Amino acid sequence: VPNPTAAFLVIGDEILSGRTREANIQVLASALTAAGIDLVEVRVVRDGQEPIVTAVNALRAAHDHVFTSGGIGPTHDDLTADSIAAAFGVGIDVRDDARRMLEELVRRRGIPMAEGILRMARIPDGAALIGNRRSGAPGFSLGNVHVMAGVPAIFAAMVEELVPTLPHGSPTVSGSIVVERGEAYFAAALADFAHRHDDLSIGSYPVQRDGRPVAEIVVRGRDRARVDAALAELAALLAEA
Amino acid sequence: VPNPTAAFLVIGDEILSGRTREANIQVLASALTAAGIDLVEVRVVRDGQEPIVTAVNALRAAHDHVFTSGGIGPTHDDLTADSIAAAFGVGIDVRDDARRMLEELVRRRGIPMAEGILRMARIPDGAALIGNRRSGAPGFSLGNVHVMAGVPAIFAAMVEELVPTLPHGSPTVSGSIVVERGEAYFAAALADFAHRHDDLSIGSYPVQRDGRPVAEIVVRGRDRARVDAALAELAALLAEA
Repeated sequence: VPNPTAAFLVIGDEILSGRTREANIQVLASALTAAGIDLVEVRVVRDGQEPIVTAVNALRAAHDHVFTSGGIGPTHDDLTADSIAAAFGVGIDVRDDARRMLEELVRRRGIPMAEGILRMARIPDGAALIGNRRSGAPGFSLGNVHVMAGVPAIFAAMVEELVPTLPHGSPTVSGSIVVERGEAYFAAALADFAHRHDDLSIGSYPVQRDGRPVAEIVVRGRDRARVDAALAELAALLAEA
Repeated sequence: VPNPTAAFLVIGDEILSGRTREANIQVLASALTAAGIDLVEVRVVRDGQEPIVTAVNALRAAHDHVFTSGGIGPTHDDLTADSIAAAFGVGIDVRDDARRMLEELVRRRGIPMAEGILRMARIPDGAALIGNRRSGAPGFSLGNVHVMAGVPAIFAAMVEELVPTLPHGSPTVSGSIVVERGEAYFAAALADFAHRHDDLSIGSYPVQRDGRPVAEIVVRGRDRARVDAALAELAALLAEA
């Protein structure tokens, strides 16, 4: 049975301008790898309804899950919730259960309520809320699209809340060895080895160590014993090659 | 005159598995912002010919420039050059000028030549080479697609070599102010301000400072005086609101 597939849509002008370094891909990718959900594509698009709608509709048709980050705050440049509603062709309004979460946040923090806070309770019709232990403002799932915050601590808390509730596949297990030579010197032997082990994914990554080029070879698969055996075989092979 | 637009295609299973944190988006985004080329989309796809060809063909039709990172090394999982040739429907072979660059690298480092090194001299027909001062292995430009290394130091050196040679637009200039309140409390005033300054891009980003929520408001535009005037007006407005 193949694993479920997923795409991640990052919504953020601040990433595309270079002002902010993207910080959520690795958190989501690691959680999905552990859950046996294969992340196969990431897109970063601008804070605009048209780019968000286009990307969401392309990705939700192509993958089992779509995760989004960013654009669910209270300001005019937070367009994600409205764009998701538009992508699905459903209505959007302040919802009682989301409003109660925000009222509870306001009470707990001892801060005044504001219209801008209620804007974060606008949820597309038919969505399920995603809570998180860091903030009172909810994300939501609509169909196979999971909408989360862009602030890294809140994004991570939402991933922690959401991913365990999704149907899991077989987790990918991996291991690596470091080869003390440049990649070019064992590329042919490695290609042959990868060809003979086509149930495994074998990647080679150049790294500098003490100024010399060495290579880290990563073997990934579904079965721990099979990955470990391949790593041992590869270490012996490359010691000779 | 609108600025040229660009997309960035990151090729790398290691990013999608969570093993490696993506490090090149911010370098490219910053260089393009300074050059007046608008980066409007990023995609991360797997090390596979089909996903690379599909993404390259979609992006090169939609944007003035497409930049890629990753997959141009000597090993079996380096599929980018062949995939770009397939996307354009052109041949690919070892090219004399690229081979001379690699022979020079081998001589300078005092290392033996290997078949795997020559694999990096395989360049699609009709491409122009992209040199770099960090490594002897070239990237290349074919049509509006610019193919670069994934290793961050080499990627950055190629960006430095390439971007000044491209037609520039108007650089985006920006400035920011920090507002010592949560975003929700000035969201309506900010929305109104943004509406009245629709030649500027105005983003609000929540930040924690000493455990309290504050907001950084970033104003971006083409004209320094206009951006500075808007920031001053905004600071006065939000001091009252």
